Amino acid sequence: MLNQGLLGRLIQSLCCLPGVGPKSAQRMAFHILQRDRQGAQRLADTLITALAKIDHCQHCRTLTDLPICEICASSTRDQSLLCVVETPADAWVVEQGAFFKGVYFILHGRLSPLDGIGPDELGLDKLEQRFAAGAVKEIILATNSTVEGEATAYYLSNLAKKYQLRASRIAQGVPIGGELEFIDSGTLSQAFMGRKTLD
Amino acid sequence: MLNQGLLGRLIQSLCCLPGVGPKSAQRMAFHILQRDRQGAQRLADTLITALAKIDHCQHCRTLTDLPICEICASSTRDQSLLCVVETPADAWVVEQGAFFKGVYFILHGRLSPLDGIGPDELGLDKLEQRFAAGAVKEIILATNSTVEGEATAYYLSNLAKKYQLRASRIAQGVPIGGELEFIDSGTLSQAFMGRKTLD
Repeated sequence: MLNQGLLGRLIQSLCCLPGVGPKSAQRMAFHILQRDRQGAQRLADTLITALAKIDHCQHCRTLTDLPICEICASSTRDQSLLCVVETPADAWVVEQGAFFKGVYFILHGRLSPLDGIGPDELGLDKLEQRFAAGAVKEIILATNSTVEGEATAYYLSNLAKKYQLRASRIAQGVPIGGELEFIDSGTLSQAFMGRKTLD
Repeated sequence: MLNQGLLGRLIQSLCCLPGVGPKSAQRMAFHILQRDRQGAQRLADTLITALAKIDHCQHCRTLTDLPICEICASSTRDQSLLCVVETPADAWVVEQGAFFKGVYFILHGRLSPLDGIGPDELGLDKLEQRFAAGAVKEIILATNSTVEGEATAYYLSNLAKKYQLRASRIAQGVPIGGELEFIDSGTLSQAFMGRKTLD
């Protein structure tokens, strides 16, 4: 009986969130109805505004509510240093580190011919236009360390070569705090190959 | 930079959900914006309707969008058998078992004099009115097996005695599938005391 009605519909709708199954959706629904109606109202309002306003930046294709995102429009960022990532979430993570002062280009995917994802789907025509315009001096390839991510980075490095741009790939190796005992041999082999001479 | 703006506000608003911290909120925001805008729109709409319409049932105090909830209004439920639980979520769990054919009364808490929660805060005046009206024959005390839950059950059983009602407490013991090795001694002692003779 309780499964029907508005409460049931609310629980079902909450399941659209990633990582939320029926049990946590149930917990969320009861929590917001009993303890945080104000927060839920704010969430609903923000969701509606975000869905209406957030789209891709015309320049870098990240998610933003502006036509050109804050980073692309910023005069304090190095517009000649371009970091290519697979998703807006990746750019967000790099941004949180606060060490990168260049700009981004978001592929929204990776090259995957079997899934029908080629250069056009990743907006590489747009990227090539920027290369041709001569505004970019170096691209940092920060695609994932997966087979597709590596293939995409390789493809992009060839594209950069065509325009005589410097292309670099982010380093692979042991993560900070990592213990050798628990590192897979692929990573370890990369860490050995990428070793640096100490002065 | 990316932390501000509408996307940042959306991530913040998602943190109002229980069990959702900044990292999962971030993942949720990117997921809905990139992959499930329809689901998010439905969620926002349902949230707004639910917040406006869902309130307490006038009869049993559960959460419902009707003045009297479906269970209280149902002619197929045994209105003389009353299960008292602490929260609407508890009633929901009992309901999902589909073994209980009576009706509920929701306390929205438990007796806790130190926190200023007495009989009035739990709507026990309303419950006593129902006892006095003579519609209830038995109450099943399904409050939690905590100190406060037990105290509340004890208080309610005394109240039931005043009106010559049968009051019962749900059984304590080993859960189905439970292995004795991992059961705490309090539960085990209750399971021994509550043992049943086999024919």
